[in-house]
Amino acid sequence: MGEFDLIKAYFTRPAHGGGVVLGVGDDCALLQPEPGMQLAVTTDTLVSGIHFLPDDAPRDLGHKALAVNLSDLAAMGATPRWAFLNLTLPAVDEAWLAAFAEGLFALAERHSVRLAGGDTTRGPLSFGLTVMGEVPPGQALLRSGARAGDLVCVSGVPGEAGAGLAHRLGRHLLPEGLAGRALQRLHRPEPRIELGLALRGLASGCIDISDGLAQDLGHVLTSSGVGAALDLACLPSSPVLDALPRDMAWRHQLTAGDDYELLFTVPAARAGLLAGLPTPVSVMGVVEAEPGLRLTAPDGQAFTLERKGHDHFI
Amino acid sequence: MGEFDLIKAYFTRPAHGGGVVLGVGDDCALLQPEPGMQLAVTTDTLVSGIHFLPDDAPRDLGHKALAVNLSDLAAMGATPRWAFLNLTLPAVDEAWLAAFAEGLFALAERHSVRLAGGDTTRGPLSFGLTVMGEVPPGQALLRSGARAGDLVCVSGVPGEAGAGLAHRLGRHLLPEGLAGRALQRLHRPEPRIELGLALRGLASGCIDISDGLAQDLGHVLTSSGVGAALDLACLPSSPVLDALPRDMAWRHQLTAGDDYELLFTVPAARAGLLAGLPTPVSVMGVVEAEPGLRLTAPDGQAFTLERKGHDHFI
Repeated sequence: MGEFDLIKAYFTRPAHGGGVVLGVGDDCALLQPEPGMQLAVTTDTLVSGIHFLPDDAPRDLGHKALAVNLSDLAAMGATPRWAFLNLTLPAVDEAWLAAFAEGLFALAERHSVRLAGGDTTRGPLSFGLTVMGEVPPGQALLRSGARAGDLVCVSGVPGEAGAGLAHRLGRHLLPEGLAGRALQRLHRPEPRIELGLALRGLASGCIDISDGLAQDLGHVLTSSGVGAALDLACLPSSPVLDALPRDMAWRHQLTAGDDYELLFTVPAARAGLLAGLPTPVSVMGVVEAEPGLRLTAPDGQAFTLERKGHDHFI
Repeated sequence: MGEFDLIKAYFTRPAHGGGVVLGVGDDCALLQPEPGMQLAVTTDTLVSGIHFLPDDAPRDLGHKALAVNLSDLAAMGATPRWAFLNLTLPAVDEAWLAAFAEGLFALAERHSVRLAGGDTTRGPLSFGLTVMGEVPPGQALLRSGARAGDLVCVSGVPGEAGAGLAHRLGRHLLPEGLAGRALQRLHRPEPRIELGLALRGLASGCIDISDGLAQDLGHVLTSSGVGAALDLACLPSSPVLDALPRDMAWRHQLTAGDDYELLFTVPAARAGLLAGLPTPVSVMGVVEAEPGLRLTAPDGQAFTLERKGHDHFI
């Protein structure tokens, strides 16, 4: 099967409507943005052996490749519109491709995202997605708006994906009844699109947790010129995390990547609105004027992290 | 050097203005399109060992990574606006990165393209660029508009890049005075942006030649539901091609990739306008109602191609 047949077979689905004037099959895709909107654009590449294991299920990989990018749109409060796929494959494996496409399109359809173009090439297995969304001018959620006194909040349960990875790699096996939940969180993260939209006009700062809660919070604090104090007792937990030694659970919660939850700050006066958000969120601490991140353990002692998160080159 | 320092050191240049509301440094870039314009979007990945050799000069690679994508915008008649870079590196080599960035930014500046975001990750060397341009609704140059009787035209001299690659690989060495020209064409293709803009309202069909003239012309013919007859004596030539055995020259002209010239069709009644285009173009033949591509050698005999162009999976 050649490159052109491959594109046709697996990645060409009717993409008219949804602002796609011309989809796969010309030199460029042609898109019609909504009048007056700003475009939010993000791109992430997943490489075999770095971001996933070669024998991960292709349906999960198709889901995750799109999910991690939609998560960036969620963190800006943008409405997803279009996606472009760069697929690098060592060889054509039709069963693998069919499952990958199925995972990708299932998530795309749930969020009305149109795959409008891309590129397939031969090489070591990796896939990159570029996604585009729209947001009204001035309403994007930035990292730079956190102010002293704001509450530091997070959606879902960061750390479960890290526990899933430790289980997957055989480093710390979970009980059978909990492993499935953790692996689901690792392999099929849910981008918090609806939450991001609901946070427009409410959150003062926002980021998605892809490289570890502490590190990603650090980006918000640095961009905003502030610091924060978190209470470890207020980190959201779950049966998966409760099953781990406490130090390991904290490490997963604070430094493991791959959670794709939203971390955001909200003026304290508006805390009452948190209960009405479409995704459960937890308040973990407060923004302070003094730069730096201060962590307090349940016994009242200061807690120090050796490593804040994930960096591909360290 | 970590991922975040790397991005900061080499790929963060002031990108305000040019429609960039927010560049590198948040979850997404924020862009402001011109009111009423359509977006033309394309993406291409270049993989080490497939699209380039590991020891190719990084300055050339930075240039080429952007050039091959701008060439797709040119083929749509779009004005380039923004670029996003996915860079996968086995390790951080600062001299390599500095030269790569220099080549990329030099070309970007010439075409007023802003690098508004991207992603760096660890893995086998490859880089993908996604570029976005704008075109007024209804004015994009499509593959599907060629009509019987139109002239088949091409810019520049397709085949020189192929001759450069044969020289580079030691398969057919060129005389010293000519090798430089052919290698320049291979390593530093010039996207025909100005020509693409000038072809709006003139060309009936258009594509860029990245996978071989005959194969890319085939895409135009298939999309348009027509065929064409080309006269090999009318293929543009040059001292580089004249120095090759005639059969090898034809093969490079018709099937070698990497030329990034524009191949387009123009209604015969408007042939007089070809001389006023910003890039020299040649008329090679004519569009015919009967599907298929017919080639005629200078002796009047039909000429048959064994292979029309390049496919990454064949």
